[in-house]
Parts: sequence; structure tokens; C-alpha cells
Amino acid sequence: MSEAAQTLEGWYCLHDFRTIDWASWKLISNEERQEAISEFNRLVDKWNTTQSNNEGSHALYTVVGQKADFMMMFARPTMEELNAIELEFNKSKLAEYTNPSYSYVSVVELSNYLSGESNEDPYQNPHVRSRLYPILPKSKYACFYPMDKRRAGNDNWYMLSMEERKGLMRSHGLIGRSYAGKVKQVISGSVGFDDFEWGVTLFSDDVLQFKKLVYEMRFDEVSARYGEFGSFFVGNILPEEDISTFLSI
Amino acid sequence: MSEAAQTLEGWYCLHDFRTIDWASWKLISNEERQEAISEFNRLVDKWNTTQSNNEGSHALYTVVGQKADFMMMFARPTMEELNAIELEFNKSKLAEYTNPSYSYVSVVELSNYLSGESNEDPYQNPHVRSRLYPILPKSKYACFYPMDKRRAGNDNWYMLSMEERKGLMRSHGLIGRSYAGKVKQVISGSVGFDDFEWGVTLFSDDVLQFKKLVYEMRFDEVSARYGEFGSFFVGNILPEEDISTFLSI
Amino acid sequence: MSEAAQTLEGWYCLHDFRTIDWASWKLISNEERQEAISEFNRLVDKWNTTQSNNEGSHALYTVVGQKADFMMMFARPTMEELNAIELEFNKSKLAEYTNPSYSYVSVVELSNYLSGESNEDPYQNPHVRSRLYPILPKSKYACFYPMDKRRAGNDNWYMLSMEERKGLMRSHGLIGRSYAGKVKQVISGSVGFDDFEWGVTLFSDDVLQFKKLVYEMRFDEVSARYGEFGSFFVGNILPEEDISTFLSI
Amino acid sequence: MSEAAQTLEGWYCLHDFRTIDWASWKLISNEERQEAISEFNRLVDKWNTTQSNNEGSHALYTVVGQKADFMMMFARPTMEELNAIELEFNKSKLAEYTNPSYSYVSVVELSNYLSGESNEDPYQNPHVRSRLYPILPKSKYACFYPMDKRRAGNDNWYMLSMEERKGLMRSHGLIGRSYAGKVKQVISGSVGFDDFEWGVTLFSDDVLQFKKLVYEMRFDEVSARYGEFGSFFVGNILPEEDISTFLSI
Amino acid sequence: MSEAAQTLEGWYCLHDFRTIDWASWKLISNEERQEAISEFNRLVDKWNTTQSNNEGSHALYTVVGQKADFMMMFARPTMEELNAIELEFNKSKLAEYTNPSYSYVSVVELSNYLSGESNEDPYQNPHVRSRLYPILPKSKYACFYPMDKRRAGNDNWYMLSMEERKGLMRSHGLIGRSYAGKVKQVISGSVGFDDFEWGVTLFSDDVLQFKKLVYEMRFDEVSARYGEFGSFFVGNILPEEDISTFLSI
Repeated sequence: MSEAAQTLEGWYCLHDFRTIDWASWKLISNEERQEAISEFNRLVDKWNTTQSNNEGSHALYTVVGQKADFMMMFARPTMEELNAIELEFNKSKLAEYTNPSYSYVSVVELSNYLSGESNEDPYQNPHVRSRLYPILPKSKYACFYPMDKRRAGNDNWYMLSMEERKGLMRSHGLIGRSYAGKVKQVISGSVGFDDFEWGVTLFSDDVLQFKKLVYEMRFDEVSARYGEFGSFFVGNILPEEDISTFLSI
Repeated sequence: MSEAAQTLEGWYCLHDFRTIDWASWKLISNEERQEAISEFNRLVDKWNTTQSNNEGSHALYTVVGQKADFMMMFARPTMEELNAIELEFNKSKLAEYTNPSYSYVSVVELSNYLSGESNEDPYQNPHVRSRLYPILPKSKYACFYPMDKRRAGNDNWYMLSMEERKGLMRSHGLIGRSYAGKVKQVISGSVGFDDFEWGVTLFSDDVLQFKKLVYEMRFDEVSARYGEFGSFFVGNILPEEDISTFLSI
Repeated sequence: MSEAAQTLEGWYCLHDFRTIDWASWKLISNEERQEAISEFNRLVDKWNTTQSNNEGSHALYTVVGQKADFMMMFARPTMEELNAIELEFNKSKLAEYTNPSYSYVSVVELSNYLSGESNEDPYQNPHVRSRLYPILPKSKYACFYPMDKRRAGNDNWYMLSMEERKGLMRSHGLIGRSYAGKVKQVISGSVGFDDFEWGVTLFSDDVLQFKKLVYEMRFDEVSARYGEFGSFFVGNILPEEDISTFLSI
Repeated sequence: MSEAAQTLEGWYCLHDFRTIDWASWKLISNEERQEAISEFNRLVDKWNTTQSNNEGSHALYTVVGQKADFMMMFARPTMEELNAIELEFNKSKLAEYTNPSYSYVSVVELSNYLSGESNEDPYQNPHVRSRLYPILPKSKYACFYPMDKRRAGNDNWYMLSMEERKGLMRSHGLIGRSYAGKVKQVISGSVGFDDFEWGVTLFSDDVLQFKKLVYEMRFDEVSARYGEFGSFFVGNILPEEDISTFLSI
Repeated sequence: MSEAAQTLEGWYCLHDFRTIDWASWKLISNEERQEAISEFNRLVDKWNTTQSNNEGSHALYTVVGQKADFMMMFARPTMEELNAIELEFNKSKLAEYTNPSYSYVSVVELSNYLSGESNEDPYQNPHVRSRLYPILPKSKYACFYPMDKRRAGNDNWYMLSMEERKGLMRSHGLIGRSYAGKVKQVISGSVGFDDFEWGVTLFSDDVLQFKKLVYEMRFDEVSARYGEFGSFFVGNILPEEDISTFLSI
């Protein structure tokens, strides 16, 4: 057996993608729509309070193309909280006019591939903590995709030795680092939680950087030989103050 | 032909995942909803009686993300009983407001890979019996996923000799054992019953242990080279006394 | 080119799986439901007459899990008859409250892999005839799955010589034979008719034997290296006299 | 680069598979149903006129199993005409009671693998013309399936030399020829038009010949190593004079 | 790590495929339909203005077969504009009578595989600009498909050296060039934006050229060994002046 990677875990994450049933949404009265929007805004307020208290974070993005109309991403200390948020949204009036189109359950993760040895408790390290419990940025664009490490024939990530994996991840990490300041990346682990092994959420003020970063990485052996990718979702930030316009008829 | 593994079988299992049609559920009167909840509670009472009589067991969990809103897991001595439970639920009022999203049919299974030789009838062994006819724990979290052993090119589990498989399973079992006390695992066989070869149901009071366990195992050759996984479902326990709140509008 | 297997063909088969739309079924009056059930019973009577005349056979089973609520299997001398049965059911009142969930079109088949040389016309042989034109048993359980022989890289069944295939099938057949008396097996060919190459329908009074048989076979090279399997359906017999109870609200 | 096969193209083809929404169809009045049937019959008349003028051809078949209730196959000189036929059907009353279940867009094709050298313009050759612009037969049965030539590892059709492909196709063609008089075959190319590379439509008065032909070919290297198949549809002819009965309630 | 290809990017693209719900569309009054068509024509006018200002481009095509009834392709300088167009269409009356069937998000891309060295800023080169910011032609036919470069076993595009890839792309490009004047091709990159790595949109006045081009390329190593293709959509131009007829009942 190969040595398993060690991981640190932070907040649990739920990515919740929804399409809007515009035809039904238009059928109800303006009043009812306002009510639904107000109720949704109260949910957002609640999430903002949680975020101000540093007890979680969230992000709202519209999604380009038919895969979804908008995405809500939530980070919370427990699975129960994610479930409660989801339930509260599902019981809301706005939810009656949305259809679920995709979701992803994971937990923010850091692996030991790139970390040095240390006697410190990493959970006390402020830099580590800021990455495990991230306040999600208000970047103009977000991108989400789930991924696996391949286990096929001669391209089997999990059969590589720790040394080989460390070497490969080092070069992979260098690409990521070259995008520092341009792209903020949240890696969340989902083994045992959802259908892929990781979720990747990227934030940037320049949407082209998502393509540049993912494409450049694809030539790196970690992705080229060992990456298996699910669906990609890309979208524009939905600032709270624009929710009403976004939903207006 | 390779020597086939010998297996012991216990209770038949049905995992039944449902989403709730919240929009329709909200359309009916509070009275009707109460009626539906009461009827469902009576079903739960019935299942509890069966469980007290040690004639089966069940578990109720909510599910995080859009794959389902809740999961009912049933273990019973016969396929007829599973079918009857399913039918009774399908005819209930609550069912009118749920949609099936996934199900899995299997039977609790123990294999001989890790057992020593013995002249005893294992079905008389109390330890074996407690694993074949398990009263499902009331852990805070549950995780379910179906899996296959791979049969692809050079990675063909079923072409390995019994000795090779025993050796591999031994090391695999050691990982499982290191989670004793943290994770309770129910393995059920589904060859001939459903689309994968096994169902795995994990229970724990620490949801992170699901990720730790499944991820650590992935580096073990049994999973790394031979494991093929279906969808993963994770959720929080739905205690009987919370059903009403869960369904309240 | 490898020598093609020679096959004998009997009755054409339609496996028709349906889910019941219980919510709609409950909406109609008791009278209407009785009418629908009576009409369905008249169809069953008709099928029984055909069967008594040895002009076909049928089987009714409920299905465990969400894949279907019940399965109707029909064997008939012509494709036109299968189409007519299907059409008649589709136009019936009960059908309005069911949704199609899966179907399979095939023809009962015997291959020459296991047969000796003979100058006789096999279609005159009573033993062969009883297998090509089988009256389906009233076993307590049935299992259905479609399958292919693999054509991938070095595991390509259709590139093997007739001798190799005969040798492999002989050992495979021995497993099957060891279940004689426990499991009755109907193999139907579907090349050119449906998405897999064969349908396998198993009947038994002990549902566990389906798992035992399919699992044991999986260690045999024919399945281990060359078997590709579709969905598995398992269920309990639905005796005619229980149809009304099954559908009662 | 391997030498590309040269192809001749004839009429464009649309295979259009539909299921009937029997429940809704039964809800309307007998008069409305008659109207819908009459309108559909007028469409068929129009198609017949086109066919009499040798400006296209069509075929109507019911489909066995749940994949579809009936199939309409159209061959026309232009894509615009296919689109117009489709649009006209979609706007018809009958279409309101059908759901699209599968379709395929292609063009009748002959390849140069089996042709000799010639200085003639093949498009002037009457035999070639009758195959490129085929009047579809009124056979009792039809079978449709789409297919690809495999491009996987060592089994990559498109990396073979023209000589190798010619040799393989020659032996493949011999099987086809041995079914002359029993099965009529229309090959249509769909590279750039639909998801597979070819559509195959078989016609016969003996439905068993579809199975015999496709199964025998599967042992030939062209199919065994290089064939990838989509869904198979099989059905019975729906003569114009039976449309009304087929749709009667 | 292999040297990554350098790319130039132009306008962002949204391909939006829709089916029409003809049954519902027919249910409303002629007046309401006219209103919906007028509103849609006003959207088209707006898109035309954008195009006249060289601030984007669009194309409208019907689609043959059941995959969609029509396709709208949009090219714009920003992701926000694509999202706004989509939202505006979704809120329109016509949209109530359409269902989304497929979409694709990408950005017009040129790669450096075929370009020589230069000190110029390519974004200032008029030829390059005309390809990065293309006014979509009014060709009679369009074809769209998404594609990946394969990363499987020995056929792993991303593990090839830049020199190897350049050599392969050169020969691939020669095929493309031989169709100059017959087929206009827009390549858009979608790594990080959608599920495949590229979208290919072809325009021609001879629909057969799509098949000829894609088929010929399939024999070239770039496609034969390294191409993975998604769904293909083909259709006829929908001139603005024909929208009303297309939608008339």
C-alpha cells in the first residue's frame, strides 16, 4: 500500500446550482414575487451575519449557459448547518420557482504534499486557518468543477509512491502559484461525500485567467496523466443589491 | 477459473432515497400535512416494533445536497418484506409529495477472505450473527455508496487467485479495523440484485471519518487498482422526534 | 474472421418494466380503479389462454427498489404479437397510471457451444423445444439483466477461436448446471433487437441463489474477462389473485 | 495521415422516433382524434407523392419495447426538406400527443472500399443511383442502429492503412452479401451530422435475419475489433391503412 | 511538464440550443403568439445593432432532428454580456414556449501551433483580429460540436512535446485549409468554461462539406488518435424574415 496523503480539513462546503422556472415565476403577481425576493434577501442577511461572525462564508454567482441560472456556495463548520441552509432555502418561496440542477458536497482541504515538516499544530497557524476557513472573495467571476485522480492501467495516481506524488504536485503547485494575485483557488475534498474526489472553486476578476490556468495545468503531468474532470460551471458575481434586478420581470 | 469467495448472508437491505416536492407539499393545508406526517410516523412506529423484536432494522437520514432530501434504509429477513415496506410507503400520503431519486437492493454479507478455518456453523456464532443481522446504529451521520471490483485489462480482480485476493483483503481490512470505534460499516452484497456488486453503508458520529477512511483506503491496492465506485450519499440523522420539524412549513 | 456461433431461436420476448404513478392512481375513484384492475385482469386472462394453448407464455413480478414497480415478461412466436400486447396494455386504463421504466426485446436462444454433433433437426427434439418455447415457471422470485460479451483490447470475445470459446463456455456451463433444480435460466439473444447482446432471466424459489449463481460465475473467465453487465432487476412473483391487493389503496 | 475513404452521397435521412402519450390521447374526443389522424394521413399522402415522383422516400414502422411507439424514416435531396418535414409534423395535431424519443440525421452513403477503379461518373451509374436514392422497401420489419469505428489503443480503425481497411471491409462485405435477398441494408453517413459516424437501417420480411446478420458480423474483425454500437431499434411495418387502427382507442 | 500551447482569445461565445413546446405554443391565442414573435424580433434587432457596431455577432439556425429546434449563437466581448443576453431571452415570452436542450460556453481562440515567430502584437494584426472577433457568416448551414484532446494510455495529447504537437497540427491544418472557401470554421476554447476543451462551429453553403471535412480529418492522427467528440448539431439558417413563418401555426 502507498502512503496516504495527510490532509487538513476546514469548513464543509455545499455548492448549490439552480435553474429558474421563469414561466412560473412570471405567472405570479408582482407582489408575490416581491415577497419571495424579500424572503430570499432575509436569508442572505442571515448568511451575511454568519460571515461577519466568521462562522462561515457564502458566495452568489449567476451561471452562464443552461446548466444553471445561479449558484450558491456555502462554507460552514458542520454538515448539519449545510443541511439546515439547504432545507431553509428549499422551504422558501423563491425555491418553488427554481429547479435543482447540480450540487456538490465537500470540505475545504489542504494536503501535506507541499508542506514542510513542522512540530506546530497547523490548525493554530493563522495562514493555514485563513485557507481552511476562507471568507470567499467578491471576485467578478467564479468557476467550479469537480475532479478525480485517475486510476486506470498505467496511469494510477494511487499506486504511485508518496515521493513520486510529492514531486509531481510540486511542479503542479508552481503553476498555481504563478497565478497568485490573479486567481484565488479553494480546494475542497469530497471523498466519501460526493461523486468526485475534489471540488475546485476558482475566483478571479479576469474570467480569462480560469481558462489560462486550467489549460496550462493540463500540460502538467498531474492533470495530463492523472486528472479526470467533471462538469465546469462559470459565472458572474451576483451582488446582493442586484438580486432584485436579476429576478425582475 | 479462480476460486470463488464464500459468503455468509444476513438480512436483505433496501436503501430508498427520496427528494421532497416542497412546492406541492406547501400547497396542501396544514391539516393534510399533519395527517401525512402522522401516517408516516405510524409507519416508523411499525418499523420500530419490528426492530424491537429483532426482526429487522431501519435508519432515517437526511441527505446533504440535491441528490436526495432523505434516505430510508431497511434491513429485513426477506425480499418480500422489503417490497411490502416500499409498497406501503408508496401508497402513503407523504409519498405523494416525494420523488424517488435512487435506491439500492442488497443483502448483508460477510466474506471468507478474512475468516479463519472453523468447523462451527458460523450462522450460530453470536458475533457473526450480530453482523449479519445488524441493528443499525443511531449515529449522527451516515454515508452510502455502491461499488464494484474492477475487471479491466490487467486490473481484473476476478482473475486473481484466492491467495492473492486474501492477501490484498487482509491489508485492506487492517485499515478498516483502525477505524473501529469511529466508523461502523455495513457491507451488503448486490450481485444479481442491483447494478453494482456491493453497497457500503458507513455510520459515524464524526462525519470527517468517512472521508478519512475512504481516502486512506483509496491508496490501498484493493481500492487503488480494483475499486470502482458509484455515487456517494452523505447525511445527518433524522431522529423520529424531528420528522415533524423537518417537514414543517 | 472467427467462426460464428450457431444459434437456435424460439419465442420472441418482451420484458416490460413499469413504475406506478401512485399519486394519480389515488386521485381517481374506487370505481375507476376497480374498472382498471378488471380490464387488466381480462388482459391476464387472455395471456393465460395463450399460455394454455402453448402459444406463448408470460410472467408477472413486482420489482424491489425504485427501478420499477412491476415487470411483465412475454414470450410469443412473433414480433407482431409482442407489439400487439404492448399496444393493448398501453391503451388500457391501468397504463395511464404507469410510466415505462425499462424494456428489453429479445428471442429465446440456444447456442451450439455446449451441444454435440447430431444429424437430427434440433427443432424436432422435445428437450430443445421445451427450452426454446418455455412455459415460464411460477417461481417466487425472478431476476433480469442484459449482458454483452466484451470486445476491449486483449479481452475480445469475438476475436477468440471457436475452440477457445467452446472451452470457456464448457466450464461456464458447469457452474450453471450445479444450480440445476435451484435456478431456472432463460437466455434470450438480442443482437440486432436491443442494446445488449443477451437478456438473462432467472427464476428461483430462493432469491439468494441469484446472488450465489451470478457471483460464482463472475470468477469464471467467461464473466471475469468477457462479461459486461447492464442493470439488474429483482422481484417477487405477483400472483394473479394478488394483483388487486397490490393495486389497492 | 492514413488515406481517407472516398464516399458517394445520396439523399439526406432523418430517422424520427416517437412515443405516444396515450393518456392524453385518450382524453380528447373521438372527433378530435379523427381530425388528428386525418391530418397525419394527409402528411403521409404528401410523402407518397414525393416518393412517386422519385424525389424522396419514407418508411413507417412501429417499434417494439419502450424506446418508441413508432419510427418515421425520411430520405430527401436536401437538409432543408428534412427540416421542413419535421417542422410540419411538429406543428400537427398528432404531434401534440407524441414525445420525441430519438432521432438521427445522416446521408445515404457508399464508400470506395469495395468498388473497383473506374473512369465513369458513378453518379450516372443506374445501380449506384438506385442505392444512393433508395425507394425504401415495404418489408415487414425494420431495424435501425447507429455505429462508430473504434479509435481506442491498438484498435484504431482510422490509423489503419487504406489497404488494411480495404482487406477488412472485403471480408465484411461478403457476410453482407450472403444475406442478399433476405436483408436490404441502407448505410447512411453521419460524421458531422449526428453523434455516431453511421446509421444502419435494415429491412427484412424475416425479423430473425437482423439478429443472424448482426451476430455473424460481430465475429468479423471489422465489428469485433472496430465496431462501436449505439441503441438498436426494431419494429414492424405500419402500413398506411393500419394507422387509424394503431391509433384507435 | 510539456510546454503549454499559447493562445490568443477574442470574443466570448454562447451557443444556446432550444426545443419548442409546440403543444403549449399552439394553446395560446394568435395575438399572444404575434406579441411573442415581435418581442423576439426586437431582441434580434438589438443583436443586429450590436453587430453593426462591431461589438459582437450572432447567428440563428434551425436544427435538424430532435436535439433542438433552433440554435442561437452569440459572440460578445465579455461574459457579462452573454449572461445578460441569456437572461433577457429567458425572461421573454417566446422563452416560455421553449425548453433548453444544450448550451456551450467558450471564447474564440487561436493557438500558436501554426503561427510563425513575430515581434508584433498579434492583437493589432487585422487578419488576426478578424478571426478573434468574427462577424458570423450568413451561410446556409451551420454545424456545432464540442471536442477534447484525448488523454488515455499511449494516446495522451498533453504528454506530447510541443514539437510533436506542432508537427501533428501542421498536417491537420492542411486539411482545414483545403476546405477554404467551402467551409468557414470558428474554433473557441472552453477549458475552464464548459465540459469539453473546444467548441467547433462550421459554416457552409454546402452541408455535405461538413461531413467531408470532419470525415477526412478523422483519418488524420490528431483526430484519429487524439480526438474525442461530443454531440454534433447541424441545421439550416433561420433568416430573420423567416422567424415568423418558422413559428407560425
